Amino acid sequence: MTPDETRCVMTQIVMPMHTNGVAGVMFGGVMMQWIDVCAGVAAMRHASGAVLTASIDRLDFMSPVQVGEIVVLQAQVNYGSRTSMEVGCRVETEDMRTRTRRYVTKAYLTFVAVDDHGKPRPIPKLDLPTEDDRRRHAEAEQRRALRLRAAGRTS
Amino acid sequence: MTPDETRCVMTQIVMPMHTNGVAGVMFGGVMMQWIDVCAGVAAMRHASGAVLTASIDRLDFMSPVQVGEIVVLQAQVNYGSRTSMEVGCRVETEDMRTRTRRYVTKAYLTFVAVDDHGKPRPIPKLDLPTEDDRRRHAEAEQRRALRLRAAGRTS
Amino acid sequence: MTPDETRCVMTQIVMPMHTNGVAGVMFGGVMMQWIDVCAGVAAMRHASGAVLTASIDRLDFMSPVQVGEIVVLQAQVNYGSRTSMEVGCRVETEDMRTRTRRYVTKAYLTFVAVDDHGKPRPIPKLDLPTEDDRRRHAEAEQRRALRLRAAGRTS
Amino acid sequence: MTPDETRCVMTQIVMPMHTNGVAGVMFGGVMMQWIDVCAGVAAMRHASGAVLTASIDRLDFMSPVQVGEIVVLQAQVNYGSRTSMEVGCRVETEDMRTRTRRYVTKAYLTFVAVDDHGKPRPIPKLDLPTEDDRRRHAEAEQRRALRLRAAGRTS
Amino acid sequence: MTPDETRCVMTQIVMPMHTNGVAGVMFGGVMMQWIDVCAGVAAMRHASGAVLTASIDRLDFMSPVQVGEIVVLQAQVNYGSRTSMEVGCRVETEDMRTRTRRYVTKAYLTFVAVDDHGKPRPIPKLDLPTEDDRRRHAEAEQRRALRLRAAGRTS
Amino acid sequence: MTPDETRCVMTQIVMPMHTNGVAGVMFGGVMMQWIDVCAGVAAMRHASGAVLTASIDRLDFMSPVQVGEIVVLQAQVNYGSRTSMEVGCRVETEDMRTRTRRYVTKAYLTFVAVDDHGKPRPIPKLDLPTEDDRRRHAEAEQRRALRLRAAGRTS
Repeated sequence: MTPDETRCVMTQIVMPMHTNGVAGVMFGGVMMQWIDVCAGVAAMRHASGAVLTASIDRLDFMSPVQVGEIVVLQAQVNYGSRTSMEVGCRVETEDMRTRTRRYVTKAYLTFVAVDDHGKPRPIPKLDLPTEDDRRRHAEAEQRRALRLRAAGRTS
Repeated sequence: MTPDETRCVMTQIVMPMHTNGVAGVMFGGVMMQWIDVCAGVAAMRHASGAVLTASIDRLDFMSPVQVGEIVVLQAQVNYGSRTSMEVGCRVETEDMRTRTRRYVTKAYLTFVAVDDHGKPRPIPKLDLPTEDDRRRHAEAEQRRALRLRAAGRTS
Repeated sequence: MTPDETRCVMTQIVMPMHTNGVAGVMFGGVMMQWIDVCAGVAAMRHASGAVLTASIDRLDFMSPVQVGEIVVLQAQVNYGSRTSMEVGCRVETEDMRTRTRRYVTKAYLTFVAVDDHGKPRPIPKLDLPTEDDRRRHAEAEQRRALRLRAAGRTS
Repeated sequence: MTPDETRCVMTQIVMPMHTNGVAGVMFGGVMMQWIDVCAGVAAMRHASGAVLTASIDRLDFMSPVQVGEIVVLQAQVNYGSRTSMEVGCRVETEDMRTRTRRYVTKAYLTFVAVDDHGKPRPIPKLDLPTEDDRRRHAEAEQRRALRLRAAGRTS
Repeated sequence: MTPDETRCVMTQIVMPMHTNGVAGVMFGGVMMQWIDVCAGVAAMRHASGAVLTASIDRLDFMSPVQVGEIVVLQAQVNYGSRTSMEVGCRVETEDMRTRTRRYVTKAYLTFVAVDDHGKPRPIPKLDLPTEDDRRRHAEAEQRRALRLRAAGRTS
Repeated sequence: MTPDETRCVMTQIVMPMHTNGVAGVMFGGVMMQWIDVCAGVAAMRHASGAVLTASIDRLDFMSPVQVGEIVVLQAQVNYGSRTSMEVGCRVETEDMRTRTRRYVTKAYLTFVAVDDHGKPRPIPKLDLPTEDDRRRHAEAEQRRALRLRAAGRTS
């Protein structure tokens, strides 16, 4: 499977139930949940089955999202090891009145493929047909090394 | 705006909270809610603002959807009149284990563009650059005539 | 079991979490979900067990429903075949300040009775003691013929 | 308005999202929420507008409610003073397979009618046309005296 | 286990989804649900496993809770018999702007410890090391006698 | 205000609605939402009002959380600048059957205090009475420098 075949697009409308009562601004925790679902779908496709969230890299919310805006999330698998994957997820909002798009945040999550008992399970190798695929894979490999080093382990 | 520019893709994972207790099968009412959101986004894009659901044509659920499956909804505006639009929405599920896709249902919804007081509001004309766009537009025009006739009105 | 014995009344208050951010108007997808639950209860009573939504006929939302209004849904089984049923559901809202009721929409849904594995399962014959029951049954039979014809099948 | 005109029937299916993980048993807090909504509708009808929950009398859950069961709640106003009301709410479940009903609990709630600023607001006198209405009113008056005494106040 | 070891603190922000459309006031049914969860945790700790809500004593809501306020619930086991427990739960709100706390309500709930089939199951004896623990236990024992008498049973 | 005065404890029971269908394991996105709420309360206390989530540092989920487990989140403000704060949040689960606690994850979030229009607003200085407070403040200051450097800005 190629990164493009794992690609997941998720669109949401920000409704009053997604806000926290501050001037109609969307609640950060709901955005995190949407990111986890969108990235999870990309991971499930590559893993041909169930996955568990293992980590999420640092997340910056560049600008508040308002009620009535449309949120578009796009995720794809960047990198796969024996039982785990890195998925990148990019979030934008659309203001339909002005027809403008705004970048909100970018996230890198890692997932572990699991069997029916929740135990890690091997996944197939990720195909990298394009130049972009190989560049993203190399960048993900570097982030992975940083994560392992931060956790006090060597790869 | 062209139909393609209104196109909305929405991906969901069927979780236990979406089922109704029957052998892990997804609850029909939740699917209807997802269809309404996905089609609503396409309509909001064309209308550059808020819309209300006016109707939904007959909906057939061809096969039950199971917990753990991925649901992919795709919607786009087919037809626009002065203040209302027809949006088509196609629903498929993906079984990640077997990597197969299954057609679930297709829906046609109409939406009315509204202002801040909930009153109908004019929308721009829909551009129809491709042959497919014009065919879908003509088919939507026929469905509209059927709807008006069924409601005892002439177009 | 008679249609009257399957009758289900469901009352809801429209709260902020049911709106989509447009001038306090209720979100269409939530109404579809309530219709599916209310009609599903009528079907479950006749089927003495679990059912799955098979289809819903065309739905027109005659007027927007506002936050704070009460919604009253009423459903009953109109028609039963070997493993499936047609349920009619009528929706009204109440504005408590003016003590007026407003007709919102009417829906016809079909459900299939299923066993623990989600397979179709025979249901008892529907009793039709009153003139009204027999009239509704005949009308439902006509709608069924239309549905089968639309689906390119004969009954 | 008579007690019968305030009568509210609410039907729900117990779904997996309503359980707390114990052998498919319904979560008590969800039942309390349903009781509050059902009784609230009866109060809103009598008050011709918004109300706030002021209290709920002791509640006993006689038997656990299972996933897949139907819950039927019925509420009506028993008693009204200048700005507040007592509402009684009876809860039963239905096991569709055996077609049996089971009594679950009975609740007495008091509500205060409020204006747009959340301040208490006078309500019309409750009409008591039948013998049953007058008996329920007298019993509610006794419960009210007990509540005031328990709170260290005289009526 | 001592009452203090069962102590559960639960903090919530009142968001728009928790209101019922009346001047931004929190919906009573949601508060009841939070009380049931908070008290349930205390009971689960003492019971070392699953519990079911058996009853809740009279609940008075002293003052409406507003969107944006913080709600703090605190619960602990007061009393334990062979298979059931009484848990007390105190609810306060905090207005962060004025940094004031307000007492909202106090609840006494009883829970039954259950096994995997939902059947009552014996629980260990509650340790009562402090004077306060013994006073609360004695008071709970009196409330229990009142409940049994109200239910027409002797202890 | 001291870090201890901002301290927020939040307890939750993992219910079926919080899982994603994988062997009864809790869904990562729900945990992120709980972390955001718990940390948000600590921030709101220090800011005496509304806040928005600005960022969340890398999050590792050390072990899957199961349905029926109790989750305890604890958050407090570590550091405050002119309009923003860092909050630390520690998450543990409790398995009541074995009475064991398990460390799940630790998160550092930054929040911005905002006024009614969502614009940044100055906050009071954080008091640091204890040695621990000063150590946590110094560590947070280092994390802040890393964040600014990663974002290509100097403090």
